[in-house]
Amino acid sequence: MTILLHELVGQDDRRFSPYCWRTRMALAHKGLEYETSPVSFSDISGLCGGAHKTVPIIEDGDTIVCDSFDIALYLERTYPDKPSLFGGPGGQASCRFVESWTNAALVPIIARSCIKDIHDVVADKDKAYFRESREKRLGGRMEDLQAQREQRIEDLHIALMPLHVMLGKQPWIGGDAPLYHDHVVFGTLQWARLTSTVPLIKEENRTSEWFARMLELYDGLGASFPAAAA
Amino acid sequence: MTILLHELVGQDDRRFSPYCWRTRMALAHKGLEYETSPVSFSDISGLCGGAHKTVPIIEDGDTIVCDSFDIALYLERTYPDKPSLFGGPGGQASCRFVESWTNAALVPIIARSCIKDIHDVVADKDKAYFRESREKRLGGRMEDLQAQREQRIEDLHIALMPLHVMLGKQPWIGGDAPLYHDHVVFGTLQWARLTSTVPLIKEENRTSEWFARMLELYDGLGASFPAAAA
Repeated sequence: MTILLHELVGQDDRRFSPYCWRTRMALAHKGLEYETSPVSFSDISGLCGGAHKTVPIIEDGDTIVCDSFDIALYLERTYPDKPSLFGGPGGQASCRFVESWTNAALVPIIARSCIKDIHDVVADKDKAYFRESREKRLGGRMEDLQAQREQRIEDLHIALMPLHVMLGKQPWIGGDAPLYHDHVVFGTLQWARLTSTVPLIKEENRTSEWFARMLELYDGLGASFPAAAA
Repeated sequence: MTILLHELVGQDDRRFSPYCWRTRMALAHKGLEYETSPVSFSDISGLCGGAHKTVPIIEDGDTIVCDSFDIALYLERTYPDKPSLFGGPGGQASCRFVESWTNAALVPIIARSCIKDIHDVVADKDKAYFRESREKRLGGRMEDLQAQREQRIEDLHIALMPLHVMLGKQPWIGGDAPLYHDHVVFGTLQWARLTSTVPLIKEENRTSEWFARMLELYDGLGASFPAAAA
Protein backbone atom coordinates (compact mmCIF):
# COMPACT_ATOMS: atom_id res chain seq x y z
CA MET A 1 0.00 0.00 0.00
CA THR A 2 1.26 3.50 -0.78
CA ILE A 3 2.30 5.54 2.26
CA LEU A 4 1.14 9.15 2.41
CA LEU A 5 3.68 11.69 3.65
CA HIS A 6 2.38 15.07 4.76
CA GLU A 7 5.25 17.51 4.33
CA LEU A 8 5.80 21.24 4.46
CA VAL A 9 5.73 23.22 1.27
CA GLY A 10 6.62 26.82 0.57
CA GLN A 11 6.30 29.00 -2.48
CA ASP A 12 7.05 27.43 -5.86
CA ASP A 13 6.45 23.95 -4.43
CA ARG A 14 9.62 24.23 -2.34
CA ARG A 15 9.89 21.26 0.07
CA PHE A 16 12.23 22.82 2.58
CA SER A 17 11.61 21.12 5.95
CA PRO A 18 14.69 19.37 7.39
CA TYR A 19 12.53 16.94 9.30
CA CYS A 20 10.36 16.07 6.29
CA TRP A 21 13.56 15.43 4.32
CA ARG A 22 14.68 12.95 6.96
CA THR A 23 11.44 11.06 6.39
CA ARG A 24 11.62 11.31 2.59
CA MET A 25 15.08 9.76 2.69
CA ALA A 26 13.95 7.08 5.13
CA LEU A 27 11.07 6.08 2.85
CA ALA A 28 13.39 5.98 -0.16
CA HIS A 29 16.03 4.03 1.82
CA LYS A 30 13.39 1.42 2.67
CA GLY A 31 12.28 1.31 -0.95
CA LEU A 32 8.67 1.92 0.05
CA GLU A 33 6.09 3.42 -2.24
CA TYR A 34 4.96 6.82 -1.03
CA GLU A 35 3.17 9.92 -2.15
CA THR A 36 3.60 13.34 -0.65
CA SER A 37 0.86 15.73 0.36
CA PRO A 38 2.19 19.29 0.64
CA VAL A 39 0.91 21.47 3.46
CA SER A 40 1.73 24.93 4.74
CA PHE A 41 2.32 25.61 8.44
CA SER A 42 -1.25 26.80 8.89
CA ASP A 43 -2.64 23.62 7.34
CA ILE A 44 -1.05 21.30 9.91
CA SER A 45 -3.75 21.73 12.54
CA GLY A 46 -6.29 20.40 10.05
CA LEU A 47 -4.46 17.12 9.43
CA CYS A 48 -5.39 13.78 10.91
CA GLY A 49 -7.98 15.17 13.31
CA GLY A 50 -5.70 17.96 14.53
CA ALA A 51 -3.78 15.73 16.93
CA HIS A 52 -0.34 16.86 15.76
CA LYS A 53 1.40 20.23 15.68
CA THR A 54 4.24 19.37 13.28
CA VAL A 55 5.00 17.53 10.08
CA PRO A 56 6.22 15.08 8.88
CA ILE A 57 3.18 12.91 9.48
CA ILE A 58 2.77 9.65 7.62
CA GLU A 59 -0.38 7.65 7.01
CA ASP A 60 0.27 3.98 6.36
CA GLY A 61 -3.13 2.36 5.97
CA ASP A 62 -4.90 3.08 9.24
CA THR A 63 -1.69 3.95 11.07
CA ILE A 64 -0.74 7.59 11.59
CA VAL A 65 2.74 8.46 12.86
CA CYS A 66 4.09 11.94 13.58
CA ASP A 67 7.71 12.99 14.35
CA SER A 68 10.55 12.09 12.01
CA PHE A 69 12.40 9.84 14.45
CA ASP A 70 9.22 8.02 15.49
CA ILE A 71 8.45 7.51 11.80
CA ALA A 72 11.91 5.97 11.26
CA LEU A 73 11.37 3.64 14.22
CA TYR A 74 7.93 2.71 12.87
CA LEU A 75 9.27 1.97 9.39
CA GLU A 76 12.12 -0.14 10.78
CA ARG A 77 9.71 -2.13 12.98
CA THR A 78 6.99 -2.49 10.36
CA TYR A 79 9.20 -3.30 7.36
CA PRO A 80 12.02 -5.42 8.81
CA ASP A 81 12.65 -7.17 5.48
CA LYS A 82 13.43 -3.91 3.71
CA PRO A 83 16.94 -2.38 3.96
CA SER A 84 17.63 -1.51 7.58
CA LEU A 85 17.64 2.14 8.60
CA PHE A 86 19.69 1.51 11.72
CA GLY A 87 21.83 -1.62 11.26
CA GLY A 88 20.72 -3.22 14.52
CA PRO A 89 19.91 -2.16 18.07
CA GLY A 90 23.18 -0.30 18.76
CA GLY A 91 22.77 1.69 15.59
CA GLN A 92 19.17 2.53 16.47
CA ALA A 93 20.07 3.66 19.98
CA SER A 94 23.08 5.71 19.01
CA CYS A 95 21.18 7.35 16.16
CA ARG A 96 19.49 9.34 18.90
CA PHE A 97 22.88 10.86 19.59
CA VAL A 98 23.36 11.81 15.94
CA GLU A 99 19.86 13.32 15.93
CA SER A 100 20.60 15.26 19.11
CA TRP A 101 23.91 16.49 17.73
CA THR A 102 22.21 17.62 14.53
CA ASN A 103 19.41 19.40 16.35
CA ALA A 104 21.62 20.99 19.01
CA ALA A 105 24.80 21.77 17.08
CA LEU A 106 23.69 22.38 13.48
CA VAL A 107 20.04 23.47 13.39
CA PRO A 108 20.47 26.66 15.48
CA ILE A 109 23.40 27.86 13.37
CA ILE A 110 21.67 27.14 10.07
CA ALA A 111 18.44 28.73 11.26
CA ARG A 112 20.27 31.95 12.16
CA SER A 113 22.21 31.87 8.88
CA CYS A 114 19.25 31.89 6.55
CA ILE A 115 16.15 32.63 8.59
CA LYS A 116 15.14 35.56 6.40
CA ASP A 117 15.71 33.47 3.28
CA ILE A 118 13.49 30.77 4.77
CA HIS A 119 10.86 33.37 5.61
CA ASP A 120 10.92 34.53 2.02
CA VAL A 121 10.07 31.07 0.67
CA VAL A 122 7.34 30.05 3.13
CA ALA A 123 3.79 30.43 1.88
CA ASP A 124 2.44 33.98 2.09
CA LYS A 125 -0.26 32.99 4.55
CA ASP A 126 2.43 31.55 6.87
CA LYS A 127 4.79 34.53 6.88
CA ALA A 128 3.37 36.40 9.89
CA TYR A 129 3.29 33.24 11.99
CA PHE A 130 6.78 32.28 10.85
CA ARG A 131 8.31 35.65 11.68
CA GLU A 132 6.73 35.91 15.10
CA SER A 133 7.50 32.34 16.20
CA ARG A 134 11.08 32.25 14.84
CA GLU A 135 12.09 35.69 16.06
CA LYS A 136 10.87 34.70 19.52
CA ARG A 137 12.75 31.39 19.38
CA LEU A 138 15.98 32.80 18.00
CA GLY A 139 15.93 36.00 20.01
CA GLY A 140 16.21 38.69 17.38
CA ARG A 141 14.90 40.23 14.18
CA MET A 142 15.50 37.82 11.30
CA GLU A 143 17.12 40.53 9.20
CA ASP A 144 19.62 41.21 11.99
CA LEU A 145 20.30 37.53 12.57
CA GLN A 146 20.92 36.83 8.91
CA ALA A 147 23.23 39.85 8.65
CA GLN A 148 25.74 37.92 10.78
CA ARG A 149 25.79 35.10 8.24
CA GLU A 150 29.50 35.19 7.50
CA GLN A 151 30.36 34.45 11.12
CA ARG A 152 27.68 31.72 11.14
CA ILE A 153 29.29 30.05 8.14
CA GLU A 154 32.52 29.89 10.15
CA ASP A 155 30.58 28.53 13.12
CA LEU A 156 28.94 25.88 10.93
CA HIS A 157 32.32 24.87 9.54
CA ILE A 158 33.54 24.25 13.09
CA ALA A 159 30.29 22.57 14.13
CA LEU A 160 30.64 20.14 11.20
CA MET A 161 34.17 19.09 12.21
CA PRO A 162 33.00 15.81 13.82
CA LEU A 163 31.52 14.75 10.48
CA HIS A 164 34.65 15.91 8.64
CA VAL A 165 36.91 13.94 10.98
CA MET A 166 34.74 10.83 10.72
CA LEU A 167 34.70 11.01 6.92
CA GLY A 168 38.47 10.54 7.07
CA LYS A 169 37.74 7.03 8.35
CA GLN A 170 34.69 5.92 6.39
CA PRO A 171 32.39 7.23 3.62
CA TRP A 172 29.09 7.33 5.55
CA ILE A 173 28.04 7.63 9.19
CA GLY A 174 26.53 4.20 8.55
CA GLY A 175 29.98 2.88 7.55
CA ASP A 176 30.15 1.39 4.05
CA ALA A 177 26.62 2.49 3.20
CA PRO A 178 24.29 5.21 4.46
CA LEU A 179 21.97 4.66 7.39
CA TYR A 180 19.27 6.86 8.88
CA HIS A 181 22.08 8.64 10.75
CA ASP A 182 23.21 10.04 7.41
CA HIS A 183 19.68 11.03 6.47
CA VAL A 184 19.23 13.03 9.68
CA VAL A 185 22.28 15.16 8.94
CA PHE A 186 21.55 15.33 5.22
CA GLY A 187 17.97 16.51 5.72
CA THR A 188 19.27 19.39 7.80
CA LEU A 189 21.85 20.49 5.23
CA GLN A 190 19.28 20.01 2.46
CA TRP A 191 17.07 22.52 4.28
CA ALA A 192 19.96 24.99 3.97
CA ARG A 193 20.55 24.11 0.32
CA LEU A 194 16.87 24.67 -0.59
CA THR A 195 16.48 27.98 1.22
CA SER A 196 19.76 29.82 1.71
CA THR A 197 20.69 32.26 -1.03
CA VAL A 198 24.38 31.72 -0.24
CA PRO A 199 26.04 28.32 0.22
CA LEU A 200 26.60 27.57 3.91
CA ILE A 201 29.26 24.88 3.51
CA LYS A 202 32.23 27.08 2.97
CA GLU A 203 34.58 25.04 0.82
CA GLU A 204 35.08 21.82 -1.08
CA ASN A 205 36.00 19.23 1.50
CA ARG A 206 35.05 15.75 2.66
CA THR A 207 31.76 17.04 4.05
CA SER A 208 30.71 18.69 0.80
CA GLU A 209 31.68 15.52 -1.06
CA TRP A 210 29.58 13.41 1.30
CA PHE A 211 26.67 15.83 0.82
CA ALA A 212 27.02 15.56 -2.95
CA ARG A 213 26.90 11.76 -2.68
CA MET A 214 23.82 12.02 -0.47
CA LEU A 215 22.09 14.17 -3.12
CA GLU A 216 22.59 11.39 -5.67
CA LEU A 217 21.13 8.55 -3.58
CA TYR A 218 17.85 6.93 -4.66
CA ASP A 219 18.03 8.09 -8.27
CA GLY A 220 19.07 11.57 -7.29
CA LEU A 221 16.12 12.26 -5.01
CA GLY A 222 17.82 15.11 -3.17
CA ALA A 223 19.39 16.60 -6.29
CA SER A 224 16.04 16.63 -8.11
CA PHE A 225 15.01 19.65 -6.05
CA PRO A 226 16.87 22.78 -7.17
CA ALA A 227 19.02 24.74 -4.73
CA ALA A 228 17.86 28.21 -3.76
CA ALA A 229 18.84 30.88 -6.25
CA ALA A 230 21.33 33.53 -5.18
CA MET B 1 44.28 -15.71 29.31
CA THR B 2 44.80 -12.36 31.00
CA ILE B 3 45.08 -9.39 28.64
CA LEU B 4 47.85 -6.89 29.34
CA LEU B 5 46.94 -3.21 28.96
CA HIS B 6 49.79 -0.75 28.64
CA GLU B 7 48.44 2.58 29.87
CA LEU B 8 49.77 6.01 30.72
CA VAL B 9 50.58 6.82 34.30
CA GLY B 10 51.51 10.09 35.94
CA GLN B 11 52.63 10.99 39.43
CA ASP B 12 50.97 9.20 42.35
CA ASP B 13 49.92 6.37 40.06
CA ARG B 14 47.42 8.66 38.29
CA ARG B 15 45.92 6.91 35.24
CA PHE B 16 44.81 9.99 33.35
CA SER B 17 44.76 9.12 29.63
CA PRO B 18 41.33 9.54 27.98
CA TYR B 19 42.16 6.91 25.37
CA CYS B 20 43.41 4.37 27.93
CA TRP B 21 40.19 4.88 29.88
CA ARG B 22 38.19 4.02 26.77
CA THR B 23 40.07 0.71 26.63
CA ARG B 24 39.76 0.05 30.38
CA MET B 25 36.01 0.47 30.12
CA ALA B 26 35.86 -1.72 27.00
CA LEU B 27 37.74 -4.53 28.77
CA ALA B 28 35.45 -4.25 31.80
CA HIS B 29 32.36 -4.09 29.57
CA LYS B 30 33.44 -7.34 27.93
CA GLY B 31 34.10 -8.90 31.34
CA LEU B 32 37.62 -9.88 30.26
CA GLU B 33 40.45 -10.47 32.70
CA TYR B 34 43.15 -7.86 32.31
CA GLU B 35 46.13 -6.42 34.07
CA THR B 36 47.52 -2.96 33.50
CA SER B 37 51.14 -2.05 32.98
CA PRO B 38 51.73 1.66 33.69
CA VAL B 39 54.09 3.58 31.43
CA SER B 40 55.14 7.21 31.13
CA PHE B 41 55.22 8.99 27.76
CA SER B 42 58.93 8.37 27.41
CA ASP B 43 58.50 4.63 28.03
CA ILE B 44 56.16 4.11 25.05
CA SER B 45 58.92 3.82 22.45
CA GLY B 46 60.32 0.84 24.37
CA LEU B 47 57.07 -1.15 24.23
CA CYS B 48 56.36 -4.06 21.89
CA GLY B 49 59.48 -3.53 19.78
CA GLY B 50 58.93 0.23 19.43
CA ALA B 51 56.33 -0.11 16.68
CA HIS B 52 53.79 2.21 18.31
CA LYS B 53 53.88 5.84 19.36
CA THR B 54 50.85 5.91 21.63
CA VAL B 55 49.05 3.94 24.29
CA PRO B 56 46.74 2.17 24.91
CA ILE B 57 48.38 -0.97 23.59
CA ILE B 58 47.02 -4.37 24.53
CA GLU B 59 48.75 -7.72 24.41
CA ASP B 60 46.38 -10.65 24.16
CA GLY B 61 48.54 -13.76 23.91
CA ASP B 62 50.64 -13.17 20.81
CA THR B 63 48.38 -10.42 19.48
CA ILE B 64 49.36 -6.79 19.95
CA VAL B 65 46.83 -4.06 19.18
CA CYS B 66 47.38 -0.31 19.43
CA ASP B 67 44.79 2.52 19.20
CA SER B 68 41.73 2.57 21.41
CA PHE B 69 39.19 2.21 18.60
CA ASP B 70 41.14 -0.60 16.93
CA ILE B 71 41.30 -2.33 20.32
CA ALA B 72 37.54 -2.09 20.69
CA LEU B 73 37.07 -3.53 17.20
CA TYR B 74 39.52 -6.34 18.04
CA LEU B 75 37.75 -7.19 21.29
CA GLU B 76 34.36 -7.23 19.60
CA ARG B 77 35.61 -9.50 16.83
CA THR B 78 37.64 -11.81 19.09
CA TYR B 79 35.13 -12.16 21.92
CA PRO B 80 31.75 -12.20 20.18
CA ASP B 81 30.12 -14.20 23.00
CA LYS B 82 30.90 -11.53 25.59
CA PRO B 83 28.61 -8.48 25.94
CA SER B 84 28.66 -6.49 22.72
CA LEU B 85 30.49 -3.18 22.66
CA PHE B 86 28.60 -1.92 19.61
CA GLY B 87 25.21 -3.63 19.40
CA GLY B 88 25.61 -4.70 15.79
CA PRO B 89 27.07 -3.29 12.57
CA GLY B 90 25.17 0.01 12.58
CA GLY B 91 26.28 0.67 16.13
CA GLN B 92 29.87 -0.12 15.24
CA ALA B 93 29.87 2.14 12.20
CA SER B 94 28.17 5.07 13.86
CA CYS B 95 30.43 4.80 16.90
CA ARG B 96 33.07 6.36 14.65
CA PHE B 97 30.89 9.43 14.58
CA VAL B 98 30.68 9.55 18.38
CA GLU B 99 34.46 9.11 18.54
CA SER B 100 34.98 11.90 16.02
CA TRP B 101 32.59 14.19 17.88
CA THR B 102 34.39 13.50 21.14
CA ASN B 103 37.81 14.10 19.65
CA ALA B 104 36.84 17.16 17.62
CA ALA B 105 34.31 18.88 19.89
CA LEU B 106 35.33 17.93 23.45
CA VAL B 107 39.04 17.06 23.59
CA PRO B 108 40.36 20.46 22.41
CA ILE B 109 38.24 22.37 24.93
CA ILE B 110 39.17 20.08 27.82
CA ALA B 111 42.85 20.16 26.86
CA ARG B 112 42.87 23.96 26.93
CA SER B 113 40.91 24.01 30.20
CA CYS B 114 43.35 22.01 32.27
CA ILE B 115 46.55 21.64 30.27
CA LYS B 116 48.70 23.05 33.08
CA ASP B 117 46.99 20.78 35.61
CA ILE B 118 47.71 17.82 33.33
CA HIS B 119 51.32 18.93 33.00
CA ASP B 120 51.59 19.03 36.78
CA VAL B 121 50.54 15.38 37.14
CA VAL B 122 52.61 13.81 34.33
CA ALA B 123 55.82 12.09 35.41
CA ASP B 124 58.71 14.47 36.04
CA LYS B 125 60.76 12.97 33.25
CA ASP B 126 57.89 13.65 30.80
CA LYS B 127 57.27 17.28 31.70
CA ALA B 128 59.61 18.92 29.19
CA TYR B 129 58.30 16.75 26.33
CA PHE B 130 54.72 17.35 27.40
CA ARG B 131 55.06 21.13 27.58
CA GLU B 132 56.80 21.44 24.24
CA SER B 133 54.49 19.10 22.30
CA ARG B 134 51.25 20.41 23.83
CA GLU B 135 52.10 24.10 23.58
CA LYS B 136 52.92 23.56 19.93
CA ARG B 137 49.67 21.64 19.34
CA LEU B 138 47.44 24.05 21.26
CA GLY B 139 49.17 27.22 20.10
CA GLY B 140 50.06 28.95 23.35
CA ARG B 141 51.72 28.78 26.74
CA MET B 142 49.84 26.36 28.93
CA GLU B 143 49.57 28.87 31.77
CA ASP B 144 47.91 31.35 29.40
CA LEU B 145 45.58 28.75 27.95
CA GLN B 146 44.44 27.54 31.34
CA ALA B 147 43.89 31.12 32.51
CA GLN B 148 40.91 31.25 30.13
CA ARG B 149 39.32 28.29 31.87
CA GLU B 150 36.07 29.99 32.86
CA GLN B 151 35.22 30.68 29.23
CA ARG B 152 36.23 27.11 28.33
CA ILE B 153 33.82 25.74 30.92
CA GLU B 154 31.06 27.67 29.16
CA ASP B 155 32.29 26.34 25.80
CA LEU B 156 32.28 22.77 27.15
CA HIS B 157 28.76 23.22 28.46
CA ILE B 158 27.63 24.19 24.96
CA ALA B 159 29.71 21.46 23.32
CA LEU B 160 28.04 18.85 25.55
CA MET B 161 24.51 19.94 24.54
CA PRO B 162 24.06 17.03 22.08
CA LEU B 163 24.61 14.59 24.94
CA HIS B 164 22.34 16.61 27.21
CA VAL B 165 19.56 16.64 24.60
CA MET B 166 19.93 12.91 23.93
CA LEU B 167 19.79 12.10 27.64
CA GLY B 168 16.28 13.56 27.64
CA LYS B 169 15.30 10.60 25.45
CA GLN B 170 17.29 7.67 26.86
CA PRO B 171 19.75 6.97 29.72
CA TRP B 172 22.81 5.95 27.66
CA ILE B 173 24.11 6.61 24.16
CA GLY B 174 23.73 2.83 23.83
CA GLY B 175 20.02 3.14 24.68
CA ASP B 176 18.89 1.11 27.69
CA ALA B 177 22.47 0.11 28.55
CA PRO B 178 25.91 1.57 27.87
CA LEU B 179 27.86 0.72 24.73
CA TYR B 180 31.37 1.64 23.67
CA HIS B 181 29.91 4.95 22.50
CA ASP B 182 29.37 5.85 26.15
CA HIS B 183 32.87 4.73 27.08
CA VAL B 184 34.45 6.99 24.46
CA VAL B 185 32.77 10.06 25.92
CA PHE B 186 33.24 8.90 29.50
CA GLY B 187 36.97 8.30 29.09
CA THR B 188 37.36 11.86 27.90
CA LEU B 189 35.47 13.38 30.82
CA GLN B 190 37.28 11.03 33.23
CA TRP B 191 40.55 12.53 31.95
CA ALA B 192 39.22 15.93 33.05
CA ARG B 193 38.05 14.54 36.40
CA LEU B 194 41.43 13.00 37.17
CA THR B 195 43.52 16.03 36.24
CA SER B 196 41.57 19.30 36.45
CA THR B 197 41.74 21.09 39.77
CA VAL B 198 38.32 22.62 39.11
CA PRO B 199 35.27 20.71 37.91
CA LEU B 200 34.66 21.28 34.20
CA ILE B 201 31.01 20.21 34.10
CA LYS B 202 29.47 23.36 35.35
CA GLU B 203 26.28 22.25 37.06
CA GLU B 204 24.17 19.31 38.10
CA ASN B 205 22.29 18.24 35.06
CA ARG B 206 21.49 15.17 32.96
CA THR B 207 25.09 15.00 31.73
CA SER B 208 26.61 15.04 35.22
CA GLU B 209 24.07 12.40 36.29
CA TRP B 210 25.05 10.20 33.32
CA PHE B 211 28.72 10.68 34.21
CA ALA B 212 28.03 9.68 37.82
CA ARG B 213 26.32 6.52 36.56
CA MET B 214 29.29 5.80 34.30
CA LEU B 215 31.65 6.08 37.29
CA GLU B 216 29.69 3.35 39.10
CA LEU B 217 29.73 0.79 36.27
CA TYR B 218 31.74 -2.42 36.68
CA ASP B 219 31.90 -2.29 40.48
CA GLY B 220 32.73 1.39 40.48
CA LEU B 221 35.79 1.11 38.24
CA GLY B 222 35.83 4.79 37.32
CA ALA B 223 34.95 6.01 40.81
CA SER B 224 37.76 3.93 42.36
CA PHE B 225 40.27 6.51 41.06
CA PRO B 226 40.08 9.75 43.05
CA ALA B 227 39.32 13.04 41.34
CA ALA B 228 42.07 15.64 41.17
CA ALA B 229 42.31 17.70 44.33
CA ALA B 230 41.52 21.42 44.15
